[in-house]
This record gives sequence, C-alpha cells and structure tokens, in this order.
Amino acid sequence: MAQILSGKDVAAAMKERLSADVADLKAKGVRPTLAILRVGEKGDQIAYERGATKRCEGIGVGVRSMTLAEEATQVELLAAIRTLNDDEGVHGVLLLSPLPAHLNLKEAAAALDPEKDVDSATASSLARVFAGEGAGFAPCTAQACLEILRHYDIAVEGKHVGVLGRSLVIGRPVALMLMHEHATPTICHSRSVDAHLITHTCDIVIVAVGRGESIGASYFSEGQVVIDVGTNWNAEAGKLTGDVRFDEVEPLVGAITPVPGGVGAVTTSVLAQHVIQAARRRLG
Amino acid sequence: MAQILSGKDVAAAMKERLSADVADLKAKGVRPTLAILRVGEKGDQIAYERGATKRCEGIGVGVRSMTLAEEATQVELLAAIRTLNDDEGVHGVLLLSPLPAHLNLKEAAAALDPEKDVDSATASSLARVFAGEGAGFAPCTAQACLEILRHYDIAVEGKHVGVLGRSLVIGRPVALMLMHEHATPTICHSRSVDAHLITHTCDIVIVAVGRGESIGASYFSEGQVVIDVGTNWNAEAGKLTGDVRFDEVEPLVGAITPVPGGVGAVTTSVLAQHVIQAARRRLG
Repeated sequence: MAQILSGKDVAAAMKERLSADVADLKAKGVRPTLAILRVGEKGDQIAYERGATKRCEGIGVGVRSMTLAEEATQVELLAAIRTLNDDEGVHGVLLLSPLPAHLNLKEAAAALDPEKDVDSATASSLARVFAGEGAGFAPCTAQACLEILRHYDIAVEGKHVGVLGRSLVIGRPVALMLMHEHATPTICHSRSVDAHLITHTCDIVIVAVGRGESIGASYFSEGQVVIDVGTNWNAEAGKLTGDVRFDEVEPLVGAITPVPGGVGAVTTSVLAQHVIQAARRRLG
Repeated sequence: MAQILSGKDVAAAMKERLSADVADLKAKGVRPTLAILRVGEKGDQIAYERGATKRCEGIGVGVRSMTLAEEATQVELLAAIRTLNDDEGVHGVLLLSPLPAHLNLKEAAAALDPEKDVDSATASSLARVFAGEGAGFAPCTAQACLEILRHYDIAVEGKHVGVLGRSLVIGRPVALMLMHEHATPTICHSRSVDAHLITHTCDIVIVAVGRGESIGASYFSEGQVVIDVGTNWNAEAGKLTGDVRFDEVEPLVGAITPVPGGVGAVTTSVLAQHVIQAARRRLG
C-alpha cells in the first residue's frame, strides 16, 4: 500500500500560505491580478478558465477575463496582448492555447511581457527554467510536481529522478527544475530504448507521456515515489485517468499521486502563486 | 585499446565542408565575418582569439578584432556591442569572458543581437538549446561534442548518455542537444549520489567537471564512448590534461577523445560554422 500524495491537500496548504501573501500585498495597496486571454469558445478552455478563476479568487487573486471571437485576427490578438502588457493593474497574463488554426501562437507568446508570463510562454521563461534564473516563470504543471514533493517532505537532493516524456511544458522543465534542486535527472521519451530499465532504478519517477494508463508495473520498483502528470479522458469508462495504471502500480511503490486529485489539483494554485510573485517582483 | 576520437580529424573534415559553404556565400556577394570583442589583455583570451582567428581565416571566414581597454566602462562596452549589432558587415559576435570585475557580463550579453550570438550568450540562445528551435546558437563547446560523434558515425538515437557536469556552457546544453537527437540523457553533478554507478551503465559518457584527471576507471565500462571536455593545465607536469585519467580509462573503453587534440580542437571550427550559418540565415 503506497502513500497517496494528495494534490488537494497540497492545494489547501498553498491556499493558506498564499492568502497570507495576498493580505500582505493588499496592505501595500496592491491587489495581485491575473488576466486570462481566451480566443473562441472551446469547452475545455472555458472549464479551465472557470477552475483557475475559482482557485485564484479563493486565494484573493483578482481575475479579469478577456475573450476574443473565434474569428479574431492576429493583429487583434497582438493588440489585446499589448493592452494587457501595458495595464498596470494586471500582474500576470495567461494566454489559453491552442489558438484557432489561423492564429500564430509563437508570435503571440513572444509578444507577452516576460514579467507577466506566469505560465512559461516566452523564450525568457524557457531560458529561466534552463538557467535557473532570469525573467519569467516555470510552467505551472511542472512546478506543481515540485510543490507536491516539497509538501510531503520528499527530499530530491542527490536523488535519481526518471522523467518519462520530454515535452516543453512538463518533461524537460521538470527535469531541469529538479536538477536545480540537486537531483540527478534522466529524461526518457518515445525513442528511448528500455526506458523501463532506467526508471526501475530511480528514486523518483515523473510520468508525463500523455497516453492514458500506458505505463505499468514493469517501470517501477519497491519504495519509489511516483508522480503521474497524465490527465486523459477515458470515454469508454467515463472517467479521467492518469498515464500510470494506478491499480497495478500502487501496491508496488512507496508513494503515488492519484488522478484526479493529484498534480492537476495543484496547477492552478501554482498559477495563483506566480501572479503573486509577479506582483511582488514589481514592488521590487 | 580504445579507438582514439581525434578532434583534429573532425576539424579537418569540417574545414573542407565549411570552405565550400563560404565559397557558396561569396558567390552571392557575402563574406561571413566574425567580430571578436575583448576587454583588456588577458593572456588566455588573447591566445583563444589568435586560435579562433587562424581557424576562421583558414576556412575563409573574416575576423575583426575589437579591443577595449581594461578600464573601459559598462557604457563603453554596451556602445561597442551596439556598434557590432548594427554593422551589416558583421554576422557573428564573440564576447570574450570573463570580463574585468567592474563590468556586468549579463547585461552585456543581453545587449547582443540574438541573430549574431554565435556562442550562446543570450537568453534566446539558451531557449533555443532548451526548446530545439528559435533564434541564437548553441554553445560551441557543447556542439563540438556532437560534431565528434557525428564524424565518427556514432549513433546517439535511443542511447543512454551520461553527462558529468551541469554547467550552462557545456553539461546542460550537451544533454539537451543530444536529447533533441533522441538520446536519453542523464545529468550528473557534484551533488549526485553514486554518479559512477549511473555512468557505468551508459552507452556514451560526456565528462565536463572541470577538474583535471579527477575521473577514473570506476565510472566506465567496456565498449563505452567517452568524450572528455576538460582542458586543465597541470603546472607540476607542465602539460594540458583532460578531466579523465586517460591512461587508466583508455584501455577499458571502446572509444575516447584525447586531450589535447580532442573537443578543444573542434570548438573554433563550430564557431566558424555558426558565423556561416548566421550569414546564411540573414540571406533567408
């Protein structure tokens, strides 16, 4: 029986801490505020926006929604980003993606002020994750993994961490961020040979392959800590699943995050935290 | 007896290839040109500048040296960088470091035009290494490791690569660059526990710890490919050494770079290559 690493518990603890930070900022006359920029009416984006708004407001972080029509032009999108960059009442900007196919996400992301880039859309934020310093912020989901480890006092220094998946939003950044905290990271991916032999000997395994219940017991060994980043909708079973076959892996390892209620439950708390940090950095 | 991976042979092959690229650019009216910006009269920087100039000119890449006095101000340094940014006859700029203590390297590097940043000084170049695309260039020494592997037809796809050292100029970028070519990288460093057990099972080991002859046989196993990035002056023995104890490791492994005549012999060829690429990118 593994220890269940509850993202909900992590989010509750973060809420307490972050609410105090907000009170502190309010005493200085600042209300940390996030702008969420959405183009079109995609259901999952509306749902994420609703969840992020609720989480932020629960902590005391203001949220402004700016919505452009599905048929908005690139010029209109860039103008909206510039408006939010210039707005002193906005500390963080979240540009929901993917954008409609006729719009250029790269150009839009590059137009964002790195100081307001609370979910790692700009080159400055990528460079920060890689170098460990500079403008911008880490991707919220990658940082949610670190927040869970921290909350449960799971030391990472000197530990061998296997990361399954090399995406720019989770695999690569989480490996580098753990390295900055002195872990030894290995990045495995779809072209790795015998990745399960590598993860088998790791102390901590972060799974972010994006394929529901595709990673089974052969990847794991006794006592390991497993962080499952996957959130996949299984239409047949009518439920959300992780990338890990939980029922098969949980009896084997030392600790594991559930899905739902794991990493996903922490991501919007990290988003709120970044908005608060952006507001603080501006105070200097 | 290991195969000796000769950096000199790699540089000779690159010279042939790059000279043809230069001829091609000249036919289009472009002479690829590097500007080397040096502050003060440090002996090792003068020596590097001399070596880089000789290598570039041998390939047909023009070199302009710009030297500021040791007591130059930050304002003067930034003005020099802006002059080189604006000069259409200059395709690449190499700012030699470290700078004198009163100058701010970060601010100076950030002032460089990313399109002319041929040795990865800017945030754009760091983001490019991390993301695998974008403006700027990889660090020359890190790319020299890849050029050696390519020259000797050593496949990296699916291979487990152990990197000893996590610096921003070599350890981290070489790990990510090999990952972009589908290797599985592990980044070990001074806080790793039992790094030798990890490297022992790797297919390729890149050593970049910066301590002369500090890495011995316990890190390696039969058939491995070893790339030794170290260049350390052993004053007692009056010779240049790698980070690896060559005499102890060479009989054990499958292939190894010597020091001198290994990675260091390729770095300035990569620099020339980046200048040529910068000139080509500008042609579009």
